[in-house]
Amino acid sequence: MVRWEPGTLERLQLAALELFEERGYDGTTVADIAARAGLTERTFYRHYADKREVLVSGSEELAALFAATIAAQPDGTTPLAAVAAALDAVGPFFDSRRPFSVRRQGVIAASRDLQERELAKLNALTGTLAEALGQRGVGESTARLVATVGVSLFHIAFSQWVSDPAGRPFNSFAQAALDDLREQVPSTS
Amino acid sequence: MVRWEPGTLERLQLAALELFEERGYDGTTVADIAARAGLTERTFYRHYADKREVLVSGSEELAALFAATIAAQPDGTTPLAAVAAALDAVGPFFDSRRPFSVRRQGVIAASRDLQERELAKLNALTGTLAEALGQRGVGESTARLVATVGVSLFHIAFSQWVSDPAGRPFNSFAQAALDDLREQVPSTS
Repeated sequence: MVRWEPGTLERLQLAALELFEERGYDGTTVADIAARAGLTERTFYRHYADKREVLVSGSEELAALFAATIAAQPDGTTPLAAVAAALDAVGPFFDSRRPFSVRRQGVIAASRDLQERELAKLNALTGTLAEALGQRGVGESTARLVATVGVSLFHIAFSQWVSDPAGRPFNSFAQAALDDLREQVPSTS
Repeated sequence: MVRWEPGTLERLQLAALELFEERGYDGTTVADIAARAGLTERTFYRHYADKREVLVSGSEELAALFAATIAAQPDGTTPLAAVAAALDAVGPFFDSRRPFSVRRQGVIAASRDLQERELAKLNALTGTLAEALGQRGVGESTARLVATVGVSLFHIAFSQWVSDPAGRPFNSFAQAALDDLREQVPSTS
């Protein structure tokens, strides 16, 4: 139903980021964003329900990629290995949008409301991963545990990646977090 | 500075829980809570900044207990073993307030706003644990990882404990989650 206008999403996202950086998230309206992008408010609302949506764009795509990668692993793959494969699969998603992610992170860091919504999104991602593991026959409590650990690894890797001055790829942080987990866990006995 | 009135906190907590259950969190005011407890609003505000505070009462005590237990572990204790000791130490804290915790959980489950605040509190607890591990000389990224895993274990154990019809002790769920983690992690190789 949405009439496609080339570059519209990118223009709205860029305008929103600029304004959030300049005036703060709370101080920016949808009308401001549309005007900065040279578009109408009506066009904005064709693509996004509200100003917050501009920032979370892509998060459903990400959750779907996690779930699909877990589902695609061969039979016999352990739950953690399936989650590790999913962490590997999402790397290019982030690396391809690094400048957006870095600026977005700055906006989120400046708003407690947005930080809480980010945590809620990570919690929802945990649910998605647990469900994907459950569909592979992993028992409920193990699925929840491994999903939670997987999202923890993701969160840590993302935090390090987004603040890395050298701009190293996402996967190098995910792999390091996973190696660190393997080193830390069995050492308790 | 606070004039102590025996049973005041318990009366306010019970009144708040009853009203949150009856009218919902959003539909309850501080005036309602004070009236139900047979106290004045002024007395309420001597103890709590707002109606949310009634629900989070105890969370700083909990974070302090986690941190103190981690700090008290002998030299050479691995980071995960220190976190496991802390999970063990907080068990009695929960078991002693089981009825309150169960009702509180029902109130939180009914409010998205309260759920987001709970997640924010878990995130703050992660910071507390990471700091306590850092003070033991654990490197920053490992401290963050083990703290995140520890809070994940805590969250899972708490969810299972609070909804357990048999009312088994908190520690049995924490131990099961930890055993499950140990089983799941090294199996990826």
